[in-house]
Amino acid sequence: MATIKDIANRLGVSVSTVSKGLNGASDISEQLRQTVLDTAVEMGYTPKQMRTRATKKLCIFIENMDYETSEQFGYDIILGFKQAAYPAHYSVTVMPVTPAFQESEKYDVYMLKNGYVGAFFVGFALKDAWLAQLSGTSIPTTLFDNYIRKNPNVSYIGTDNFEGIDYAIEHLIALGHRKIALLNGSAHSMITEQRRQAYIESMNAHDLEISEKWMPYGYYVAAAAKDHVANLLSLGATAIVCGNDLLASGAIDECRAHGYRVPEDVSIIGFDDIPISAQLNPPLTTVRQDRIELGKCGFFALHSLINHVSVSKNLLRPQLIIRNSTAPVRK
Amino acid sequence: MATIKDIANRLGVSVSTVSKGLNGASDISEQLRQTVLDTAVEMGYTPKQMRTRATKKLCIFIENMDYETSEQFGYDIILGFKQAAYPAHYSVTVMPVTPAFQESEKYDVYMLKNGYVGAFFVGFALKDAWLAQLSGTSIPTTLFDNYIRKNPNVSYIGTDNFEGIDYAIEHLIALGHRKIALLNGSAHSMITEQRRQAYIESMNAHDLEISEKWMPYGYYVAAAAKDHVANLLSLGATAIVCGNDLLASGAIDECRAHGYRVPEDVSIIGFDDIPISAQLNPPLTTVRQDRIELGKCGFFALHSLINHVSVSKNLLRPQLIIRNSTAPVRK
Repeated sequence: MATIKDIANRLGVSVSTVSKGLNGASDISEQLRQTVLDTAVEMGYTPKQMRTRATKKLCIFIENMDYETSEQFGYDIILGFKQAAYPAHYSVTVMPVTPAFQESEKYDVYMLKNGYVGAFFVGFALKDAWLAQLSGTSIPTTLFDNYIRKNPNVSYIGTDNFEGIDYAIEHLIALGHRKIALLNGSAHSMITEQRRQAYIESMNAHDLEISEKWMPYGYYVAAAAKDHVANLLSLGATAIVCGNDLLASGAIDECRAHGYRVPEDVSIIGFDDIPISAQLNPPLTTVRQDRIELGKCGFFALHSLINHVSVSKNLLRPQLIIRNSTAPVRK
Repeated sequence: MATIKDIANRLGVSVSTVSKGLNGASDISEQLRQTVLDTAVEMGYTPKQMRTRATKKLCIFIENMDYETSEQFGYDIILGFKQAAYPAHYSVTVMPVTPAFQESEKYDVYMLKNGYVGAFFVGFALKDAWLAQLSGTSIPTTLFDNYIRKNPNVSYIGTDNFEGIDYAIEHLIALGHRKIALLNGSAHSMITEQRRQAYIESMNAHDLEISEKWMPYGYYVAAAAKDHVANLLSLGATAIVCGNDLLASGAIDECRAHGYRVPEDVSIIGFDDIPISAQLNPPLTTVRQDRIELGKCGFFALHSLINHVSVSKNLLRPQLIIRNSTAPVRK
């Protein structure tokens, strides 16, 4: 476990400042105190006050998502959740689950047996056994990017995909693009459908033509770009909005493979802003989901459910990060 | 100001129990502690610990809504907000505002001059000067039932109108109704449009016919029922979903005035569940918005913005309260 000195070194402040932050002393600023606490959580140091008062147990169940290192999508989500949960005197267990594990025991039973008062689901698929059980659960449960109808014990948190796609389209229109395609992620996903609907609404709102051919479904991996980019280019697309950053990186490669330069000939926009996006060639323009905020938001929604405030949906603002994969349309 | 003894009397517990609750002692249950704190806030007693640590000032601006007594719509919203804000060491000022006042000073300037770190807007109209200024504000601001696009400093909280209207329609369909009208509230309101869209989607999902005549706009007052109910009855409506409880009470009167009994001939459903709804004749079936929860949710969203978690939308679950204004369709 990290020591107070480790935290002080990381932040470049004195040990006594870290001490004050951890103990809630009044003679350091609120902002510095928060930074000290957030860093302590990230480094695995739990202040004694949090440890001794932590009586309520939460569990984060995670599937289909990497989270062990800071480059991976899930890392910051879990970190943000813990940063919000520990000061509120919860303990947090992170548990990867598989479909087989979900078949082995009912969700509610597992929660009760282990004394968890609530859970946060990250990366689950619609066909998962535990997801199907959530319509009837009495356990406070918050889902990242999934929604359960009419159960007041379950809430959905995520990024506002409609605003995110609209940011991307408006940016491209401002650059003179009119022939804008959507290379979407996997079908049968709530998020994919939201982004598709958002694309349709945004294109309609700007009087731009759309048709089915311009919004193909792919998968949320780079390789899926191979199946669709050549066709979109042959249709005359000058810009492609992609379902996530991996797809966008694949789309950049495909454009090059067909003799198109990015961004001179074709503009490419991603979604998520994973850490690698800034390192792509060219660095990727993308719609950021702030994963630390998503984690904190997940905790707030779950904490609300536990306190009998039946949050249904809690959506965060996306942010357009403009880098070098977009440029004015070629004359 | 209420004393500890007043709180003990109201709750029927000992003074020492109240004391323990206020001071966070560990030998009373978390639930009782919460009840003591909530009651203290409602009775105007602020524990010393909260008073001395309260350094962050919030303001609730309220317009077009009564809130002084517990029967009025705004009362519980403000109470819920305070119940969540005080334990987090905020002080809360409630301030009624008029259109003229909003013209007299810019919103951001007013906030800075008075040292408020955030605000909660309740009951504002789309045409209000301060609402127009929110697209560009840098002050954390949460709106009840209004939404501002693309400003990460502003959030929207409310009840999920889609689920609420769907509850009403599904209840009526289960009672055998097929000819279901929507007597909506005022046009040019985000909430009104959401409920209209929800009605259309829900009727479509159940393969029931709709047309413009079946979903007139009214106003959110009882008298508006006069303009529309006779026409809906002449079209053959056997059930009317109303934009709020006041409209529903007017609709009941209008049905009677035209010789129709409620619920034997016509079923009526309201929206909100204001305190008077249970006292109507017949007691009103309605879609409840939990106003205490809305207030707490308003605080959580604002607290998130202040902590740089850019909440966009935070929606609560509605609840269908079945009383006596709905019945099986007449054969």
